[in-house]
Amino acid sequence: MGERSLPAQVTIWEVLPRDGFQMEKKWIPTEEKVRIIHGLAQTGIKHIEATAFVHPKAIPQLKDAEKVVKGVMDLGEVSFRALVPNVKGAERAIEAGIQDLKLLLSSTDSHSLNNSNCTVAEAQEKLLPIIDLAEKHHVEYSGSLTVAFGCPYEGEVSLERLNALIERYQEMGIRKVSLADTTGMGNPLQVSKVLRNLRAAFPKFEFSLHLHNTRGMAFANAIAGLSEGVLSLDSSVAGLGGCPYAPNAAGNIATEDLVHGLHEMDIKTGINVDELLKVARGVVETIGHDGGSFVLKAGQNKDLHQKPKGQEKLG
Amino acid sequence: MGERSLPAQVTIWEVLPRDGFQMEKKWIPTEEKVRIIHGLAQTGIKHIEATAFVHPKAIPQLKDAEKVVKGVMDLGEVSFRALVPNVKGAERAIEAGIQDLKLLLSSTDSHSLNNSNCTVAEAQEKLLPIIDLAEKHHVEYSGSLTVAFGCPYEGEVSLERLNALIERYQEMGIRKVSLADTTGMGNPLQVSKVLRNLRAAFPKFEFSLHLHNTRGMAFANAIAGLSEGVLSLDSSVAGLGGCPYAPNAAGNIATEDLVHGLHEMDIKTGINVDELLKVARGVVETIGHDGGSFVLKAGQNKDLHQKPKGQEKLG
Repeated sequence: MGERSLPAQVTIWEVLPRDGFQMEKKWIPTEEKVRIIHGLAQTGIKHIEATAFVHPKAIPQLKDAEKVVKGVMDLGEVSFRALVPNVKGAERAIEAGIQDLKLLLSSTDSHSLNNSNCTVAEAQEKLLPIIDLAEKHHVEYSGSLTVAFGCPYEGEVSLERLNALIERYQEMGIRKVSLADTTGMGNPLQVSKVLRNLRAAFPKFEFSLHLHNTRGMAFANAIAGLSEGVLSLDSSVAGLGGCPYAPNAAGNIATEDLVHGLHEMDIKTGINVDELLKVARGVVETIGHDGGSFVLKAGQNKDLHQKPKGQEKLG
Repeated sequence: MGERSLPAQVTIWEVLPRDGFQMEKKWIPTEEKVRIIHGLAQTGIKHIEATAFVHPKAIPQLKDAEKVVKGVMDLGEVSFRALVPNVKGAERAIEAGIQDLKLLLSSTDSHSLNNSNCTVAEAQEKLLPIIDLAEKHHVEYSGSLTVAFGCPYEGEVSLERLNALIERYQEMGIRKVSLADTTGMGNPLQVSKVLRNLRAAFPKFEFSLHLHNTRGMAFANAIAGLSEGVLSLDSSVAGLGGCPYAPNAAGNIATEDLVHGLHEMDIKTGINVDELLKVARGVVETIGHDGGSFVLKAGQNKDLHQKPKGQEKLG
């Protein structure tokens, strides 16, 4: 544990409205989505991935992307980001008023073909017009690498491959990349090695982590990342955002678990866990289930129990 | 992350038959317990906390301690340990053939009074005749400190307090102590600090960790401990062993999750995860629920999915 190198503060990107909602089959009404995002903002969360501008047939749950964005634009203190899988999505996002685009790229051809119907090399070419569009409209953009810590089809992703993928991002002018453990295959030793390697090779890059708790290692992976200079983490309230490869498995690391744990380690997030838990309870009520949140079930460390009777004399 | 200091091999103490079973209200027949322990031994597990010799009224589920031990004594390659809360329990354990006694001590008075009806100082005095008995019968013994990383009544346990408790154990002649995060309140930074402190102050001691995943930090805490010289971890198949303070919360770190994660990090355990998952499935069938196991739901990293059709050309 690189105790000395843990940061004093971490930026949390809340991805519930995109990664959490997209997995839900049952329609969540637009006004409910807007209400939840307002609730998230009340917790002190300042960074929210509001939605994805994808084809409505691909992810029907997110077909109201424009309406959701319109409904939350009053939250002036929050930075919103949207996932855009193609130029059409980028055009829609910019038109809707999104100022920060998250580009999508798989780390392996198998995953890319399954998710985007093209190889990684083809997907990389398709990013160029999105970047041109973003530059033209002066909106921010960042890259992502899904299945960076393990692919459900191909297994381990080599350091060489990750290096080459970031190299290509660099050539495109990108300086911020979210490394995603999409199906929760990463372990903390690997996260350390990958981050150490990439940060040495690309010192001007900002790397963030998008972690799923599929195999119970997300919090350990977060700490490993923070120990290696990561300052920004994605998470989802209530731990929603499971993956299609393991229907009953845990989803994204829960924001309440991550923030609770970080605060216990004296790492600031600016987020109020009490408020976060209220939102999480509401979300579970709306959606009908959680995605593997711990603190939602167990409570916070500070929720002490009354001492057993007859112990009043104890300090 | 202290990558360089992670051990090459870790000893897993399986605590399902004690910590897992003791929380189950529904009676598990003795022959089923014996059968499960035989199954555990088949996975390569070499260290099992077989039961606790407690008053049958305190934990009715473990009232068959003698019979369980008798039923597993054919497993010559396994080291068995039993929890003994008092001299009576120690006598019973030794009489039954147990060669390794685990002594019980709370880190705080509130928890001690609630669990053992006496203060920590009183509990420490009661350990002395158990140690005498063990010495007389030439059986091994080790200490434990429950709620070492946080007490549900008193909150944080100070380094000074932990130091004093280990100091007293040292005076008693004890050299092995299991530090237990009984209600899952510990975080990896704290685990690092506690271990670094205790190992510096008591260089001849062997410290092991007993971790609960109540707030999702158990795996991170395990890695923090291993990075600070811990070589032995407790865990429970299927993650059973929840605590009474949070009825729906996760239990002990699941052996399958721990071993799967360690193997992914090239840390050896001598345990076969495929076999472990078979036993875990059987346990869940017998008991009717799991305690928050991840790999049981999501599968192992090595369980790759078939590449989508049309990708046969890919490497």
